[in-house]
Amino acid sequence: MKFDGGSNGFDVTAGSINGGGAGVGVGGAPPPSPIRTPPTTAVSGNESGEMFIPPLNFSIVDNGIFRSGFPDRANFGFLKSLGLRSILYLCPEEYPEANKEFLTANGISLFQFGIDGYKEPFVNIPQEAIREALKILLDVRNHPVLIHCKRGKHRTGCLVGCYRKLQRWCLSSIFDEYQRFAGSKARVSDQRFVELFDISGLRHLPLSFSCSKIN
Amino acid sequence: MKFDGGSNGFDVTAGSINGGGAGVGVGGAPPPSPIRTPPTTAVSGNESGEMFIPPLNFSIVDNGIFRSGFPDRANFGFLKSLGLRSILYLCPEEYPEANKEFLTANGISLFQFGIDGYKEPFVNIPQEAIREALKILLDVRNHPVLIHCKRGKHRTGCLVGCYRKLQRWCLSSIFDEYQRFAGSKARVSDQRFVELFDISGLRHLPLSFSCSKIN
Repeated sequence: MKFDGGSNGFDVTAGSINGGGAGVGVGGAPPPSPIRTPPTTAVSGNESGEMFIPPLNFSIVDNGIFRSGFPDRANFGFLKSLGLRSILYLCPEEYPEANKEFLTANGISLFQFGIDGYKEPFVNIPQEAIREALKILLDVRNHPVLIHCKRGKHRTGCLVGCYRKLQRWCLSSIFDEYQRFAGSKARVSDQRFVELFDISGLRHLPLSFSCSKIN
Repeated sequence: MKFDGGSNGFDVTAGSINGGGAGVGVGGAPPPSPIRTPPTTAVSGNESGEMFIPPLNFSIVDNGIFRSGFPDRANFGFLKSLGLRSILYLCPEEYPEANKEFLTANGISLFQFGIDGYKEPFVNIPQEAIREALKILLDVRNHPVLIHCKRGKHRTGCLVGCYRKLQRWCLSSIFDEYQRFAGSKARVSDQRFVELFDISGLRHLPLSFSCSKIN
Protein backbone atom coordinates (compact mmCIF):
# COMPACT_ATOMS: atom_id res chain seq x y z
CA MET A 1 0.00 0.00 0.00
CA LYS A 2 1.29 3.45 -0.82
CA PHE A 3 -0.03 6.67 0.64
CA ASP A 4 0.43 9.81 -1.34
CA GLY A 5 1.39 12.68 0.92
CA GLY A 6 0.28 15.05 -1.84
CA SER A 7 1.34 18.66 -2.05
CA ASN A 8 2.61 18.89 1.51
CA GLY A 9 5.66 16.98 0.44
CA PHE A 10 5.44 14.03 2.83
CA ASP A 11 6.59 10.66 1.66
CA VAL A 12 4.50 7.98 3.28
CA THR A 13 4.88 4.28 2.53
CA ALA A 14 3.79 1.14 4.26
CA GLY A 15 6.42 -1.57 4.20
CA SER A 16 6.90 -5.06 5.44
CA ILE A 17 10.17 -6.97 5.56
CA ASN A 18 10.22 -10.68 6.38
CA GLY A 19 6.50 -11.22 5.78
CA GLY A 20 4.80 -12.70 8.78
CA GLY A 21 2.80 -9.69 9.91
CA ALA A 22 -0.24 -8.08 8.30
CA GLY A 23 1.10 -5.57 5.71
CA VAL A 24 2.71 -5.15 2.27
CA GLY A 25 5.44 -3.41 0.26
CA VAL A 26 8.59 -1.50 1.19
CA GLY A 27 10.20 1.87 0.45
CA GLY A 28 12.27 4.76 1.77
CA ALA A 29 15.12 7.26 1.24
CA PRO A 30 18.90 6.92 1.83
CA PRO A 31 19.59 6.23 5.51
CA PRO A 32 20.89 8.93 7.85
CA SER A 33 23.06 7.88 10.80
CA PRO A 34 20.83 6.49 13.50
CA ILE A 35 21.29 7.57 17.08
CA ARG A 36 24.09 5.40 18.41
CA THR A 37 23.93 4.18 22.01
CA PRO A 38 27.44 3.25 23.16
CA PRO A 39 27.54 -0.35 24.40
CA THR A 40 28.04 -0.72 28.09
CA THR A 41 30.42 -3.23 29.59
CA ALA A 42 29.82 -2.37 33.23
CA VAL A 43 27.78 -4.83 35.22
CA SER A 44 26.69 -3.39 38.52
CA GLY A 45 25.18 -5.58 41.16
CA ASN A 46 23.48 -8.20 38.95
CA GLU A 47 24.00 -11.81 39.80
CA SER A 48 23.98 -13.21 36.27
CA GLY A 49 26.02 -11.97 33.31
CA GLU A 50 23.61 -10.28 30.95
CA MET A 51 22.40 -6.75 31.52
CA PHE A 52 19.67 -5.33 29.32
CA ILE A 53 19.90 -1.95 27.64
CA PRO A 54 16.45 -0.73 26.59
CA PRO A 55 16.38 1.76 23.71
CA LEU A 56 16.08 5.47 24.43
CA ASN A 57 12.68 6.47 25.81
CA PHE A 58 11.54 2.86 26.02
CA SER A 59 8.20 2.04 27.62
CA ILE A 60 5.34 -0.39 27.46
CA VAL A 61 2.13 1.11 26.08
CA ASP A 62 -0.18 -1.86 26.55
CA ASN A 63 -0.12 -5.63 26.52
CA GLY A 64 2.02 -6.50 23.49
CA ILE A 65 2.73 -2.87 22.49
CA PHE A 66 5.97 -1.03 23.22
CA ARG A 67 7.43 2.35 22.25
CA SER A 68 10.91 3.79 22.05
CA GLY A 69 13.43 5.91 20.19
CA PHE A 70 15.59 4.43 17.44
CA PRO A 71 17.12 1.12 18.57
CA ASP A 72 20.83 0.52 18.14
CA ARG A 73 22.99 -2.61 18.26
CA ALA A 74 23.43 -2.14 21.99
CA ASN A 75 19.67 -2.61 22.38
CA PHE A 76 19.30 -5.77 20.30
CA GLY A 77 19.69 -8.12 23.27
CA PHE A 78 16.89 -6.36 25.08
CA LEU A 79 14.67 -6.27 21.98
CA LYS A 80 15.22 -9.99 21.51
CA SER A 81 14.00 -10.56 25.06
CA LEU A 82 10.69 -8.91 24.15
CA GLY A 83 9.92 -11.61 21.58
CA LEU A 84 8.77 -9.02 19.04
CA ARG A 85 6.75 -10.02 15.99
CA SER A 86 6.75 -6.56 14.40
CA ILE A 87 8.30 -3.14 14.40
CA LEU A 88 6.23 -0.10 13.44
CA TYR A 89 8.75 2.43 12.11
CA LEU A 90 7.62 6.02 11.63
CA CYS A 91 10.58 7.70 9.86
CA PRO A 92 10.96 8.04 6.07
CA GLU A 93 14.65 7.05 6.04
CA GLU A 94 15.61 3.56 4.95
CA TYR A 95 16.07 1.14 7.82
CA PRO A 96 19.76 0.65 8.66
CA GLU A 97 21.40 -2.59 7.52
CA ALA A 98 22.34 -3.72 11.01
CA ASN A 99 18.76 -3.31 12.17
CA LYS A 100 17.40 -5.11 9.09
CA GLU A 101 19.75 -8.02 9.79
CA PHE A 102 18.49 -8.17 13.37
CA LEU A 103 14.90 -8.31 12.13
CA THR A 104 15.69 -11.03 9.60
CA ALA A 105 17.56 -13.11 12.16
CA ASN A 106 14.61 -12.91 14.55
CA GLY A 107 11.69 -13.21 12.13
CA ILE A 108 10.41 -9.71 12.89
CA SER A 109 8.29 -7.82 10.35
CA LEU A 110 8.92 -4.16 9.60
CA PHE A 111 6.03 -1.80 8.93
CA GLN A 112 7.22 1.58 7.77
CA PHE A 113 5.14 4.75 7.74
CA GLY A 114 7.54 7.54 6.87
CA ILE A 115 6.54 10.78 8.54
CA ASP A 116 9.02 13.63 8.24
CA GLY A 117 10.38 14.94 11.50
CA TYR A 118 9.93 18.66 10.84
CA LYS A 119 10.40 21.29 13.47
CA GLU A 120 7.55 23.58 14.38
CA PRO A 121 5.82 25.63 13.04
CA PHE A 122 5.99 23.63 9.81
CA VAL A 123 4.96 20.31 11.30
CA ASN A 124 2.22 18.50 9.45
CA ILE A 125 1.51 14.96 10.54
CA PRO A 126 -0.46 13.20 7.80
CA GLN A 127 -3.75 11.81 9.16
CA GLU A 128 -3.83 8.92 6.72
CA ALA A 129 -0.40 7.64 7.76
CA ILE A 130 -1.41 7.59 11.40
CA ARG A 131 -4.72 5.95 10.54
CA GLU A 132 -3.03 3.13 8.64
CA ALA A 133 -0.35 2.77 11.32
CA LEU A 134 -3.12 2.43 13.89
CA LYS A 135 -4.68 -0.41 11.92
CA ILE A 136 -1.37 -2.26 12.04
CA LEU A 137 -1.11 -1.52 15.75
CA LEU A 138 -4.62 -2.76 16.52
CA ASP A 139 -4.06 -6.05 14.70
CA VAL A 140 -3.02 -8.46 17.45
CA ARG A 141 -1.45 -10.75 14.87
CA ASN A 142 1.36 -8.16 14.79
CA HIS A 143 1.93 -8.26 18.55
CA PRO A 144 4.26 -7.93 20.33
CA VAL A 145 5.02 -4.76 18.38
CA LEU A 146 7.53 -1.97 18.98
CA ILE A 147 6.60 1.54 17.76
CA HIS A 148 9.56 3.81 17.18
CA CYS A 149 10.68 6.93 15.37
CA LYS A 150 13.97 8.69 16.05
CA ARG A 151 13.62 9.86 19.63
CA GLY A 152 10.32 8.28 20.59
CA LYS A 153 8.82 11.67 21.39
CA HIS A 154 6.80 13.26 18.58
CA ARG A 155 5.77 10.84 15.86
CA THR A 156 5.58 7.96 18.33
CA GLY A 157 3.85 10.30 20.77
CA CYS A 158 1.18 11.20 18.21
CA LEU A 159 0.47 7.58 17.34
CA VAL A 160 0.23 6.54 20.98
CA GLY A 161 -1.95 9.58 21.69
CA CYS A 162 -4.41 8.48 19.02
CA TYR A 163 -4.32 4.96 20.47
CA ARG A 164 -5.24 6.38 23.87
CA LYS A 165 -8.10 8.25 22.18
CA LEU A 166 -9.40 4.90 20.99
CA GLN A 167 -9.06 3.68 24.57
CA ARG A 168 -11.29 6.64 25.57
CA TRP A 169 -8.74 8.35 27.75
CA CYS A 170 -9.57 11.95 28.59
CA LEU A 171 -7.44 14.44 26.67
CA SER A 172 -5.66 15.81 29.72
CA SER A 173 -4.30 12.34 30.53
CA ILE A 174 -3.36 11.76 26.89
CA PHE A 175 -1.41 15.03 26.83
CA ASP A 176 0.15 14.30 30.22
CA GLU A 177 1.50 11.00 28.91
CA TYR A 178 2.68 12.68 25.69
CA GLN A 179 4.56 15.30 27.68
CA ARG A 180 6.16 12.72 29.93
CA PHE A 181 8.03 11.42 26.90
CA ALA A 182 8.49 14.65 24.96
CA GLY A 183 9.73 16.64 27.96
CA SER A 184 11.00 20.08 27.02
CA LYS A 185 10.49 19.20 23.34
CA ALA A 186 6.71 18.88 23.67
CA ARG A 187 4.83 20.35 20.67
CA VAL A 188 1.39 21.87 20.90
CA SER A 189 0.90 20.91 17.24
CA ASP A 190 1.21 17.22 18.14
CA GLN A 191 -1.35 17.58 20.88
CA ARG A 192 -3.65 19.46 18.56
CA PHE A 193 -3.25 16.66 16.02
CA VAL A 194 -4.36 14.11 18.58
CA GLU A 195 -7.24 16.26 19.75
CA LEU A 196 -8.60 16.69 16.23
CA PHE A 197 -7.84 13.16 15.00
CA ASP A 198 -10.99 11.45 13.78
CA ILE A 199 -11.35 7.98 15.32
CA SER A 200 -14.63 7.13 13.61
CA GLY A 201 -14.38 4.07 11.41
CA LEU A 202 -11.51 2.52 13.34
CA ARG A 203 -12.12 -0.73 15.14
CA HIS A 204 -12.96 0.19 18.67
CA LEU A 205 -11.08 -1.37 21.52
CA PRO A 206 -13.07 -2.98 24.33
CA LEU A 207 -13.83 -0.57 27.17
CA SER A 208 -10.85 -1.86 29.11
CA PHE A 209 -7.09 -1.65 29.09
CA SER A 210 -6.20 -4.82 27.27
CA CYS A 211 -3.65 -5.72 29.95
CA SER A 212 -6.50 -6.40 32.31
CA LYS A 213 -7.32 -9.55 30.40
CA ILE A 214 -5.58 -12.17 32.47
CA ASN A 215 -4.74 -15.42 30.72
CA MET B 1 3.18 -9.04 59.05
CA LYS B 2 4.60 -5.95 60.68
CA PHE B 3 7.91 -4.34 59.83
CA ASP B 4 9.55 -2.28 62.48
CA GLY B 5 11.13 0.84 61.03
CA GLY B 6 13.29 1.01 64.17
CA SER B 7 15.01 4.18 65.29
CA ASN B 8 14.60 5.99 61.99
CA GLY B 9 10.98 6.58 62.90
CA PHE B 10 9.30 4.95 59.92
CA ASP B 11 6.01 3.17 60.40
CA VAL B 12 5.82 0.24 58.07
CA THR B 13 2.91 -2.21 58.02
CA ALA B 14 1.68 -4.77 55.58
CA GLY B 15 -2.07 -4.84 55.24
CA SER B 16 -4.72 -6.66 53.33
CA ILE B 17 -8.37 -5.71 53.08
CA ASN B 18 -10.86 -8.06 51.46
CA GLY B 19 -8.63 -11.12 51.55
CA GLY B 20 -8.15 -12.58 48.15
CA GLY B 21 -4.53 -11.69 47.56
CA ALA B 22 -1.41 -13.04 49.19
CA GLY B 23 -0.88 -10.98 52.39
CA VAL B 24 -2.09 -10.32 55.97
CA GLY B 25 -3.06 -7.64 58.51
CA VAL B 26 -3.95 -3.96 58.28
CA GLY B 27 -2.81 -0.69 59.84
CA GLY B 28 -2.19 3.04 59.37
CA ALA B 29 -2.56 6.62 60.64
CA PRO B 30 -5.41 9.15 60.21
CA PRO B 31 -5.99 9.95 56.54
CA PRO B 32 -4.80 13.18 54.94
CA SER B 33 -6.82 14.64 52.06
CA PRO B 34 -5.95 12.72 48.93
CA ILE B 35 -5.18 14.58 45.74
CA ARG B 36 -8.55 15.31 44.15
CA THR B 37 -8.90 15.09 40.37
CA PRO B 38 -11.92 17.14 39.27
CA PRO B 39 -14.32 15.01 37.24
CA THR B 40 -14.56 15.95 33.61
CA THR B 41 -17.88 16.25 31.86
CA ALA B 42 -16.54 17.23 28.47
CA VAL B 43 -16.65 14.55 25.85
CA SER B 44 -14.53 15.47 22.91
CA GLY B 45 -14.74 13.36 19.83
CA ASN B 46 -15.64 10.00 21.42
CA GLU B 47 -18.49 8.10 19.92
CA SER B 48 -19.74 6.38 23.05
CA GLY B 49 -20.60 7.98 26.39
CA GLU B 50 -17.95 6.94 28.87
CA MET B 51 -14.60 8.65 29.02
CA PHE B 52 -11.87 7.27 31.23
CA ILE B 53 -9.86 9.37 33.63
CA PRO B 54 -6.63 7.60 34.62
CA PRO B 55 -5.12 8.64 37.95
CA LEU B 56 -2.30 11.15 38.06
CA ASN B 57 0.97 9.82 36.63
CA PHE B 58 -0.67 6.57 35.53
CA SER B 59 1.30 4.08 33.47
CA ILE B 60 1.68 0.39 32.84
CA VAL B 61 4.89 -1.10 34.22
CA ASP B 62 4.56 -4.62 32.90
CA ASN B 63 1.90 -7.19 32.09
CA GLY B 64 -0.51 -7.00 35.03
CA ILE B 65 1.39 -4.23 36.88
CA PHE B 66 0.39 -0.57 36.88
CA ARG B 67 1.59 2.56 38.70
CA SER B 68 0.06 5.91 39.52
CA GLY B 69 -0.47 8.69 42.02
CA PHE B 70 -3.29 8.54 44.57
CA PRO B 71 -6.56 7.57 42.87
CA ASP B 72 -9.69 9.60 43.49
CA ARG B 73 -13.39 8.97 42.88
CA ALA B 74 -13.03 10.42 39.40
CA ASN B 75 -10.62 7.59 38.57
CA PHE B 76 -12.73 4.69 39.87
CA GLY B 77 -14.36 3.99 36.49
CA PHE B 78 -10.96 3.68 34.86
CA LEU B 79 -9.59 1.52 37.70
CA LYS B 80 -12.58 -0.76 37.39
CA SER B 81 -11.78 -1.21 33.70
CA LEU B 82 -8.34 -2.56 34.65
CA GLY B 83 -9.88 -5.51 36.48
CA LEU B 84 -7.50 -5.08 39.41
CA ARG B 85 -7.01 -7.84 41.97
CA SER B 86 -4.76 -5.80 44.28
CA ILE B 87 -3.51 -2.37 45.19
CA LEU B 88 -0.02 -1.90 46.60
CA TYR B 89 -0.23 1.29 48.67
CA LEU B 90 3.01 2.88 49.84
CA CYS B 91 1.88 5.68 52.20
CA PRO B 92 1.50 5.33 56.00
CA GLU B 93 -1.84 7.17 56.12
CA GLU B 94 -5.04 5.19 56.51
CA TYR B 95 -6.78 4.48 53.22
CA PRO B 96 -9.68 6.88 52.64
CA GLU B 97 -13.20 5.50 53.17
CA ALA B 98 -14.35 6.15 49.61
CA ASN B 99 -11.37 4.22 48.26
CA LYS B 100 -11.92 1.36 50.74
CA GLU B 101 -15.54 1.12 49.62
CA PHE B 102 -14.44 0.94 46.00
CA LEU B 103 -12.05 -1.90 46.85
CA THR B 104 -14.73 -3.80 48.77
CA ALA B 105 -17.27 -3.37 46.00
CA ASN B 106 -14.80 -4.73 43.45
CA GLY B 107 -13.11 -7.49 45.45
CA ILE B 108 -9.70 -5.78 45.39
CA SER B 109 -7.10 -6.50 48.08
CA LEU B 110 -5.11 -3.70 49.67
CA PHE B 111 -1.46 -4.22 50.59
CA GLN B 112 -0.10 -1.31 52.56
CA PHE B 113 3.57 -0.57 53.12
CA GLY B 114 3.68 2.81 54.79
CA ILE B 115 6.79 4.74 53.80
CA ASP B 116 6.94 8.34 54.95
CA GLY B 117 7.16 10.93 52.19
CA TYR B 118 9.98 13.04 53.63
CA LYS B 119 11.70 15.76 51.71
CA GLU B 120 15.44 15.59 51.07
CA PRO B 121 17.95 15.50 52.67
CA PHE B 122 16.17 13.51 55.36
CA VAL B 123 14.77 10.82 53.08
CA ASN B 124 15.31 7.29 54.23
CA ILE B 125 13.48 4.59 52.33
CA PRO B 126 13.44 1.41 54.43
CA GLN B 127 14.97 -1.51 52.51
CA GLU B 128 12.81 -4.09 54.22
CA ALA B 129 9.55 -2.41 53.25
CA ILE B 130 10.57 -2.32 49.60
CA ARG B 131 11.75 -5.92 49.76
CA GLU B 132 8.42 -7.14 51.14
CA ALA B 133 6.48 -4.94 48.71
CA LEU B 134 8.48 -6.49 45.88
CA LYS B 135 7.47 -9.97 47.02
CA ILE B 136 3.82 -8.94 46.80
CA LEU B 137 4.48 -7.43 43.40
CA LEU B 138 6.23 -10.52 42.04
CA ASP B 139 3.39 -12.82 43.13
CA VAL B 140 1.22 -13.16 40.01
CA ARG B 141 -1.72 -14.23 42.17
CA ASN B 142 -1.95 -10.54 43.07
CA HIS B 143 -2.10 -9.38 39.44
CA PRO B 144 -3.39 -7.14 38.01
CA VAL B 145 -1.92 -4.87 40.68
CA LEU B 146 -1.74 -1.08 40.92
CA ILE B 147 1.21 0.43 42.79
CA HIS B 148 0.61 3.91 44.13
CA CYS B 149 1.77 6.44 46.68
CA LYS B 150 0.69 10.07 46.72
CA ARG B 151 2.07 11.43 43.46
CA GLY B 152 3.43 8.28 41.87
CA LYS B 153 6.93 9.76 41.72
CA HIS B 154 9.23 8.84 44.62
CA ARG B 155 8.05 5.86 46.63
CA THR B 156 6.43 4.29 43.59
CA GLY B 157 9.50 5.27 41.57
CA CYS B 158 11.81 3.47 44.02
CA LEU B 159 9.74 0.29 44.00
CA VAL B 160 9.53 0.22 40.21
CA GLY B 161 13.27 0.98 40.01
CA CYS B 162 14.03 -2.07 42.12
CA TYR B 163 11.68 -4.13 39.95
CA ARG B 164 13.63 -3.01 36.88
CA LYS B 165 16.81 -4.06 38.65
CA LEU B 166 15.34 -7.54 38.97
CA GLN B 167 14.59 -7.36 35.24
CA ARG B 168 18.31 -6.63 34.73
CA TRP B 169 17.85 -3.21 33.23
CA CYS B 170 21.00 -1.09 33.14
CA LEU B 171 21.01 1.66 35.74
CA SER B 172 20.94 4.51 33.24
CA SER B 173 17.65 3.23 31.82
CA ILE B 174 16.23 2.66 35.32
CA PHE B 175 17.10 6.25 36.27
CA ASP B 176 15.77 7.57 32.96
CA GLU B 177 12.41 5.93 33.61
CA TYR B 178 12.45 7.18 37.22
CA GLN B 179 13.06 10.74 36.04
CA ARG B 180 10.35 10.56 33.43
CA PHE B 181 7.81 10.27 36.26
CA ALA B 182 9.55 12.39 38.88
CA GLY B 183 10.29 15.28 36.52
CA SER B 184 11.67 18.32 38.31
CA LYS B 185 11.10 16.54 41.63
CA ALA B 186 13.61 13.79 40.91
CA ARG B 187 15.70 12.85 43.98
CA VAL B 188 19.24 11.60 43.80
CA SER B 189 18.61 9.78 47.10
CA ASP B 190 15.93 7.64 45.42
CA GLN B 191 18.28 6.73 42.61
CA ARG B 192 21.02 5.92 45.08
CA PHE B 193 18.57 3.71 46.96
CA VAL B 194 17.84 1.75 43.81
CA GLU B 195 21.51 1.52 42.88
CA LEU B 196 22.46 0.10 46.27
CA PHE B 197 19.37 -2.10 46.74
CA ASP B 198 20.35 -5.72 47.28
CA ILE B 199 18.36 -8.01 44.97
CA SER B 200 19.98 -11.23 46.14
CA GLY B 201 17.51 -13.68 47.64
CA LEU B 202 14.56 -12.33 45.67
CA ARG B 203 12.89 -14.60 43.14
CA HIS B 204 14.46 -13.76 39.81
CA LEU B 205 12.29 -12.92 36.87
CA PRO B 206 12.89 -14.77 33.62
CA LEU B 207 15.34 -12.99 31.32
CA SER B 208 12.50 -11.39 29.43
CA PHE B 209 9.95 -8.67 29.85
CA SER B 210 6.94 -10.66 30.98
CA CYS B 211 4.72 -8.91 28.44
CA SER B 212 6.50 -10.80 25.70
CA LYS B 213 4.70 -13.97 26.75
CA ILE B 214 1.83 -14.12 24.31
CA ASN B 215 -1.15 -16.21 25.36
